[in-house]
Amino acid sequence: MIESVNNEKIKYYAKLNQKKYRDEAKLFIVEGEHLVEEAKKRNLVEVIYSLEPLDGAIRVSEQVMSKLSALSTIPKVLAVVRMPEKREIKGNVLLLDDIQDPGNLGTIIRSAVAFGIDTIVASYNTVDFYNLKTIRSSEGMLFYVNLLKGDIEEFILNNKDKYTIYNTNVVGGIDVSDIEINTPFALIMGNEGAGVSARIQKLAHKNVYIPMNSKCESLNVAMATSIILYEFSKRR
Amino acid sequence: MIESVNNEKIKYYAKLNQKKYRDEAKLFIVEGEHLVEEAKKRNLVEVIYSLEPLDGAIRVSEQVMSKLSALSTIPKVLAVVRMPEKREIKGNVLLLDDIQDPGNLGTIIRSAVAFGIDTIVASYNTVDFYNLKTIRSSEGMLFYVNLLKGDIEEFILNNKDKYTIYNTNVVGGIDVSDIEINTPFALIMGNEGAGVSARIQKLAHKNVYIPMNSKCESLNVAMATSIILYEFSKRR
Repeated sequence: MIESVNNEKIKYYAKLNQKKYRDEAKLFIVEGEHLVEEAKKRNLVEVIYSLEPLDGAIRVSEQVMSKLSALSTIPKVLAVVRMPEKREIKGNVLLLDDIQDPGNLGTIIRSAVAFGIDTIVASYNTVDFYNLKTIRSSEGMLFYVNLLKGDIEEFILNNKDKYTIYNTNVVGGIDVSDIEINTPFALIMGNEGAGVSARIQKLAHKNVYIPMNSKCESLNVAMATSIILYEFSKRR
Repeated sequence: MIESVNNEKIKYYAKLNQKKYRDEAKLFIVEGEHLVEEAKKRNLVEVIYSLEPLDGAIRVSEQVMSKLSALSTIPKVLAVVRMPEKREIKGNVLLLDDIQDPGNLGTIIRSAVAFGIDTIVASYNTVDFYNLKTIRSSEGMLFYVNLLKGDIEEFILNNKDKYTIYNTNVVGGIDVSDIEINTPFALIMGNEGAGVSARIQKLAHKNVYIPMNSKCESLNVAMATSIILYEFSKRR
């Protein structure tokens, strides 16, 4: 049992709550039973820490748990997890242009898995995939999709002959329920405030929009992503 | 200009950050220019406070603003707003069974307006409509829908001859893209963890589900609500 917050391993792992150290170590922390189970299924667990005796876990004191945890209420169990290996892109792709909110990113990942996206390419300015809030709101689905950071413009320029590139806009373009879906596709979703940047919009093959009540200017980006991916999954 | 945090009005309005006082006064606070504008459009503004000179607003010091604001970064402007009058129900209805997360409730409200819901009836245990996070994530759309708290079971029992009641479930029932939509309808969405409670499920006329990848157990409730309301709006 580890009781001291000055234990070298604990001090090292506690730093994983900062992006810089996560990127360096290629490790991150997941908190709570459900996420630990998902990480185990994917064979990505480095070590499990638990407040109570638990098979395969190292017991720790509440002080140690709260040093490792980023939550105000500490979990009973958490795990240090290896970042999944990046894979070659082999299916439909979601391109994220500067998504800011970690909760939005997490629910986008969850819906992307639900509707059969193989790879998410997020711009460098998109919030971190391994942010605690992102992990939590993905409900562990981040283990089931190929997560890449990259230059979206470059991705499009390199893949526009292989992929049909769909851009989204609040108005203009084709009603999402009327559009013809060509696979493989890449769908571009934009920043919460600014939408998809103009230089990226221009590179798309087609524009889609979701028809809605005129009182409502726009949908939350995670809602819009879910609806469009749902429509695309239905009709391909 | 009000500079003192001990000003009686300021002390009174600052209490509106607690639900108890909001319910008593039938007032709540909206922060930031966009929400203040939406409240003005609906003629619901009681008073506007601003850090800078602004037509129709009372100027306040940063100390006063931070006493009124619930945000870590204070806004330039905020308003004390009257709760909209409850109206008679006259269109399609969304029934919320114990939604817990204020962000989810806000985005549900936003999507409900986007897809033509007239009234939301939320169970008494659902998070407050006038919670700051709910207001923010509704993007001001809470001013465009009739918001009621009530007993969902009672609503269904009183309205099941007039309304087609749709229940949602992760599995089972009819694929949402195949279901026939009868209006007026009432759609029931359930708690983030527990779903719709069994006694309410039993009262529904029809069950709908969203088909998805088997890796994904369920969608976020706000995503599921958005997709179903989108489908319903398309085909009625």
